Amino acid sequence: MATLRLAAWSTSLQFSDLPEPVTQAAVRSFYNWTGCALGGSNHPTTTTALKALAPFFGKPTSSILGHSDDKDKDNIGSADASHAALINGIASHVHDYDDTHLETIIHPTGPVASALLAQAEALGKPVVGEEFILALVTGIEAECKAGLAVWPKHYDIGWHITSTTGAIGAAVAVGKLLNLTTKQMAHAIGIAATQVTGLREMFGSDTKSFHVGRSAQNGLMAATLASKGYTSSTQALEAKRGWVNVVSETHNLDEVMPTLGKVWETEKNSFKPFPCGIVVHPIIDGCIQLHRDMQEQGLSAREIKNIKCKVHPLVLELTGKKTPQDGLQAKFSVYHGGAVGLVLGKAGPAQYEDNVVTSPEIVSVRDKIAATADATLGTDEAEIVVEFTSPSSALTKHVKHAIGSLEVPMTDAQLQEKFIDQVSPVLGTEGAKKASDAALALRAVVDVAGMAKTL
Amino acid sequence: MATLRLAAWSTSLQFSDLPEPVTQAAVRSFYNWTGCALGGSNHPTTTTALKALAPFFGKPTSSILGHSDDKDKDNIGSADASHAALINGIASHVHDYDDTHLETIIHPTGPVASALLAQAEALGKPVVGEEFILALVTGIEAECKAGLAVWPKHYDIGWHITSTTGAIGAAVAVGKLLNLTTKQMAHAIGIAATQVTGLREMFGSDTKSFHVGRSAQNGLMAATLASKGYTSSTQALEAKRGWVNVVSETHNLDEVMPTLGKVWETEKNSFKPFPCGIVVHPIIDGCIQLHRDMQEQGLSAREIKNIKCKVHPLVLELTGKKTPQDGLQAKFSVYHGGAVGLVLGKAGPAQYEDNVVTSPEIVSVRDKIAATADATLGTDEAEIVVEFTSPSSALTKHVKHAIGSLEVPMTDAQLQEKFIDQVSPVLGTEGAKKASDAALALRAVVDVAGMAKTL
Repeated sequence: MATLRLAAWSTSLQFSDLPEPVTQAAVRSFYNWTGCALGGSNHPTTTTALKALAPFFGKPTSSILGHSDDKDKDNIGSADASHAALINGIASHVHDYDDTHLETIIHPTGPVASALLAQAEALGKPVVGEEFILALVTGIEAECKAGLAVWPKHYDIGWHITSTTGAIGAAVAVGKLLNLTTKQMAHAIGIAATQVTGLREMFGSDTKSFHVGRSAQNGLMAATLASKGYTSSTQALEAKRGWVNVVSETHNLDEVMPTLGKVWETEKNSFKPFPCGIVVHPIIDGCIQLHRDMQEQGLSAREIKNIKCKVHPLVLELTGKKTPQDGLQAKFSVYHGGAVGLVLGKAGPAQYEDNVVTSPEIVSVRDKIAATADATLGTDEAEIVVEFTSPSSALTKHVKHAIGSLEVPMTDAQLQEKFIDQVSPVLGTEGAKKASDAALALRAVVDVAGMAKTL
Repeated sequence: MATLRLAAWSTSLQFSDLPEPVTQAAVRSFYNWTGCALGGSNHPTTTTALKALAPFFGKPTSSILGHSDDKDKDNIGSADASHAALINGIASHVHDYDDTHLETIIHPTGPVASALLAQAEALGKPVVGEEFILALVTGIEAECKAGLAVWPKHYDIGWHITSTTGAIGAAVAVGKLLNLTTKQMAHAIGIAATQVTGLREMFGSDTKSFHVGRSAQNGLMAATLASKGYTSSTQALEAKRGWVNVVSETHNLDEVMPTLGKVWETEKNSFKPFPCGIVVHPIIDGCIQLHRDMQEQGLSAREIKNIKCKVHPLVLELTGKKTPQDGLQAKFSVYHGGAVGLVLGKAGPAQYEDNVVTSPEIVSVRDKIAATADATLGTDEAEIVVEFTSPSSALTKHVKHAIGSLEVPMTDAQLQEKFIDQVSPVLGTEGAKKASDAALALRAVVDVAGMAKTL
């Protein structure tokens, strides 16, 4: 009954059923996704796919974020909904800077919003903000419940859980927008579930981001086919040879599905403040706070004698790179993260550019950082002591929960700063601000398609 | 090394490396696929997908078999290569009448030929018959070797092995046509392998055929992306979290891959003479032979007293339906199969029409058939005794291996009869003959795109 239960819940959900914090979380999720998709729009992984697949593009109903139609410059700013979903999905994940449903480590908005925005633009009638938010939440809930049902075994086996569940979420979201019946929705879930895309072996290659885009496409196609009467199985998730049993050795589908509409997964979505592995975040957070303390006390980075950090053992295991040579390596260096936090008070994409990583000022502070593992600390916890030469003094900081955790979520202002930092290199500062305003206004928007064009 | 080994073998294979029987098997496989794709082109499963997805179609480079562009009639006869691959793939599988690689029960030509023909038409330069055959064989070999590596566990878990391996085969075939480097080919294999499409739970619904079409698309997209430098993993198949380990609990990749180019899977492809479950085939085969014996001896079906059959136990388990009410049910009735064989001397699609299934003449003979299970018989074996009232006499037939088995393959003439039977209801008898001639001439063709238009 799980498939039909999910289908029935999805089709009957109303905007008025959404608690206010869920709606707010959805708006923040969409906003963060937009920044990521714009920020990743000119990444080579995105543009390679865009150029390779352009010959297949159909009638251009939907925006490719960060690009505009310009025949002279051979630029392509729109495509059929399916390809727009693919390209925007790739872009939104390519910097590994998107959101995280911490219980399943699904990046939930990528597959769902990529499909939904493209479909909203292709619908042929205006979609108001609340309708869009409702579909977005429905899809994210479906995706994360499916993920919870097979976590952690599914991920351990080697599946990229964001995309394998993302197709289901995208199908439900698009199906919601298309106003499917419960039976059609069940078939949409089935057509999406049968397309299990995403092997973890692909991590580190262009194909990791492809997973997110492809799952958006898979879901969009599933809902489209189901809307025209294409059938699958109405027991697609729970059957003996259905999704949970084939993609995982164990599952708890029967415990998870009854929580639909009672426990909201959208509300548990978290956002990355820094474009690097989440385990480095407590150190960066603490060092940025220390940068402010130093400013207040008139202390300069040049006066630092040494920096002693205590971190969870996983931090050194995953990000113990002492002397990173470029931006990519720096993402795996807790030392670089600490150094830019202390020296620049910031750790956005600009602070992971190659020239920052190799700048003498950063390297000098980086080399003064010593980190030791302490298993008594949490993974989102860190202790930092900075000693100064002249005047001889010390500053300490204990970060109990890093910024971006559920306990200390990013504020709206911080999310906006992140957005601007991501998008400015693509659209310029003015363009980034305009896009930010447009995405922030989602709830009040009278036609999502118009908003998409502004983005 | 399996992925790179497969990639290197694929890119270096030459037409002159193909043994003559392999080339012949490839031509027969393509011919049979063409008949199936044309025969299934007006099935509701195919046309529903065609209409639902038409709004997404790109520049029409490639033929949708069995359809022609006709704006007045709202008919669509061409699409971008990706959608053409999807629709033709669905059509080729929808009647469950396609080919079978018996060791893995993969239906190999569907995913590979659907992608390859669509790409050949979109290539922008002529593809000669031998080039097409070479790519087809390369793809089928890749697909079946991948299947052999994970058979039978992969299928037992619940994967539709035709589509899960089909994407890999389609990627290799299209990659061969696009002249990929070995490294690009490895990436194409990876991008295809990560899209694991096809749950067996979908059997009995439209989505079963969708799997075949979607795997063709997945492979075509994988090769396209790889040709433009998109990366995946060069250990996509063998890595700890690569394809074989994620989609199967056990595998023998290391034993299978060294047989590339030594054991040819294409040569082992078999064709279904009758549009029903393969276990019924020995009875149909025997009854058709008995029909001829009766004609020679001037015996009429009206004079039949009873028919006693001995069959493998699986036959009654899978196809024991005594009184089928329509064509679909008749596919699961060994009794209907025997009756049309005896009365009409034929068991093609026309003999599975509803009105034949319920015709008094067929029902009368059907009800005289008694079948008993005999575990000493092979699954492709049957014994039949027909007793006549007047004159009191009997005819017997022992089918050791049914027609369509590897031991008794369909002759070229029988394949052509099958083709005409499938295609005539769609294109008319003349059209079917024309299409048959075109497909038969594959090897000598100077431009596959031209041939596709004739189809």
